Amino acid sequence: MNEFAIIEQYFSNIGQDCGCTVLGIGDDAAVVEVPPGQQLVVALDTLVGGIHFPDNTRPADIAYKALAVNLSDLAAMGATPAWFQMSLTLADVDTHWLSQFANGLKQTADTFRLQLIGGDTCRGALSISIQIAGLVPVGKYVTRGGAAPGDIILVSGELGNAALWLAQLRGEIELPQSLRAKCALALNRPQPRLELASFLREFASAAIDISDGLVGDLKHILDASKSGARIAQIALPVNSWIEQQNAYHYALDAGDDYEICCTVPPAHRGEIETWNREHPESRLAPIGEITESGYHLRVGEQSIDLDGHKGYRHFD
Amino acid sequence: MNEFAIIEQYFSNIGQDCGCTVLGIGDDAAVVEVPPGQQLVVALDTLVGGIHFPDNTRPADIAYKALAVNLSDLAAMGATPAWFQMSLTLADVDTHWLSQFANGLKQTADTFRLQLIGGDTCRGALSISIQIAGLVPVGKYVTRGGAAPGDIILVSGELGNAALWLAQLRGEIELPQSLRAKCALALNRPQPRLELASFLREFASAAIDISDGLVGDLKHILDASKSGARIAQIALPVNSWIEQQNAYHYALDAGDDYEICCTVPPAHRGEIETWNREHPESRLAPIGEITESGYHLRVGEQSIDLDGHKGYRHFD
Repeated sequence: MNEFAIIEQYFSNIGQDCGCTVLGIGDDAAVVEVPPGQQLVVALDTLVGGIHFPDNTRPADIAYKALAVNLSDLAAMGATPAWFQMSLTLADVDTHWLSQFANGLKQTADTFRLQLIGGDTCRGALSISIQIAGLVPVGKYVTRGGAAPGDIILVSGELGNAALWLAQLRGEIELPQSLRAKCALALNRPQPRLELASFLREFASAAIDISDGLVGDLKHILDASKSGARIAQIALPVNSWIEQQNAYHYALDAGDDYEICCTVPPAHRGEIETWNREHPESRLAPIGEITESGYHLRVGEQSIDLDGHKGYRHFD
Repeated sequence: MNEFAIIEQYFSNIGQDCGCTVLGIGDDAAVVEVPPGQQLVVALDTLVGGIHFPDNTRPADIAYKALAVNLSDLAAMGATPAWFQMSLTLADVDTHWLSQFANGLKQTADTFRLQLIGGDTCRGALSISIQIAGLVPVGKYVTRGGAAPGDIILVSGELGNAALWLAQLRGEIELPQSLRAKCALALNRPQPRLELASFLREFASAAIDISDGLVGDLKHILDASKSGARIAQIALPVNSWIEQQNAYHYALDAGDDYEICCTVPPAHRGEIETWNREHPESRLAPIGEITESGYHLRVGEQSIDLDGHKGYRHFD
C-alpha cells in the first residue's frame, strides 16, 4: 500500500467543511480563504513516538492527542478551529493501526469541527506533525505579551493529573483507584479548552497553554510581558492526592496539562465570577497576580524564588 | 540548550516580512492575514533523514531541500511564496549542525522571499516538517484536474538528473565528469520552478510537480482529469548520458526531479513558444498530448502501455 492509497483510503474524508476550504486534500497543495473580518491563527506541532507518548499508546489516543495539543494552542490564542494538515511518518504500514488511527482522527475532527485539507505520509520512525489553523476576529487574538501589574493570574482545570498518570505508568507512584480514570484521561485525552477562547478574546490581557508545566509556561508570559508574578501554592487547582501528599511539583513543573494559564485585569473580576458560575466545567482558578518584577511562589509562610525555574521542589 | 533557546538563537529571524504576518514566531501560534483578492495555498511536507536524504547530507542542503520541495508544490499550484512554519526533530543538539542548518534556511528563505513565522523543535530521529503558504489571485490556482484531450503535455528542466546522482553516490553508475556537478546540484539543490507560476496561472489546464517520477505524477493528472495521455520518449528533456545509455527509466520513473509537468490547451501554443524564447532557463518541453483514455509511451516504433505504471523498463 503506497502513500496515495493510504491517503485515499484513510484520510480523504476527515472532518466537516469549515466554510474556508476552496480546494481540499488530494492536489499538490490545498487552497483556503479567510472570511472577511477574520484573521488566521496557525500553529505546527510534532508528536514523536517514545517521546511525546509511550510507543504502545492506542492509535486513537495518539490521533486525539496530536490534534488536541494543537487545538490547545488555538484556544490560548482565542481562536476557533477551522482546518488542519497532517504529516504522518510510519515505520511500516499496519492497516489495523492505520484504521484505528484514522477513526480516532475523524472522531476528534468531528468533535472539534475542523477539516483535514492536506498533508503527506512517509516512511520512518513514528511521528505526527499537525499544522492547525483557526479564525479570530481581526485584532482580537490573545498573546503572551499583554499582562500588566495587578492582573489576576488564572488557570483552567486541574494541574498535574497527566503527570501523575505518567508516574503511575512508570511505577513511581501508586494512585488511589478513585483518581486513576481521571488521571489517565488527562494524559491520553487532554481537553483543549476551546470554550475559553471567547472569554480570553474579551477579557484576557495574556494567555498561554500549559504544555511544559505551569512555572515554565507562566514564565513565558512574564518574559513577553516584561513583568513579574506572585502565585500561591494553596490556590493551585489540584486533586486531593497532590494535596494530601504535598506533591505540588506535579502541578508546578510537569508537562502535558494542556490547560490555559491567563491573566485578566482586576477590572474584569466580575466577569471571571460570572464565567465560573456559568461554566463550572471550565472554571478559571485565581492563583496569584502579576507584579512589576520577580517571580515568587508562596508556600505556607515561605516565599520561594521561581526565577531560573528552580527551588520549590525542595519544599515538597 | 532547550527548545526555546534553540528557537531564539537560530530561528527567530528567518526571512523577510511578507506583508501577511500579523504576529510572527514566539507565541502559542502565529497570526496572518490574506490580502484582499488573494487566496492562500498551503502544503505540508516532511523530509526524514536516511529516507529523503542520506544521513551525511550537509545541513545547509537539508534546509534548502526541505524548503524547495514545498516551494515546488506552490509553483505547481501557480502560487507565490509568503510564509512557512517548521517543525524540526533532532536526535541531539549539535550547535555546529544547527548553525549551518539555520544559515541554509535563512539564505533559502531570503532567496525565495518567504518568512518563518512559527513551528517547534523536538527530540527524536532527524526529520523536518515544513508547512508552507503562498498566495494566488482568487480562483487562479492550478489543479491536477483540468487537462482535456488535445492539451499539450509539457515538462520543465531536465528529468532524471537527481536520480542519476543518487545512483552515482550508491556506486551503481559512473557518470562522466562533465555531468557530475549538474546532477549533484539537481539532487541537493532542486530548483523550485516558481518563475513558472505566472505562466501556469494564465495558460495551464493542469499542473503537478514531479517528485515521484514523471510516469507516476502525470498519472495523477490523468486520474484527476479523467483522461489519458500519449508521451514520446524521444521528446523527454534528458542529459546526453541518459540518451547515449538509453537509460530513460531515470527520467520516467525516478523521484526527486521537482520539475513541473503541466498541460496547456493547443490554443496557447504561441504562448508556449513565447515563454520558451523569453525564458530559456525554464523552458517547457512538449512531451506528448492528453487523450480521451489510455496511457502510452512511444519508444521508437513501439507503443508501451504505462497503465499500472509498469512495462517500459524492459525496453531500456
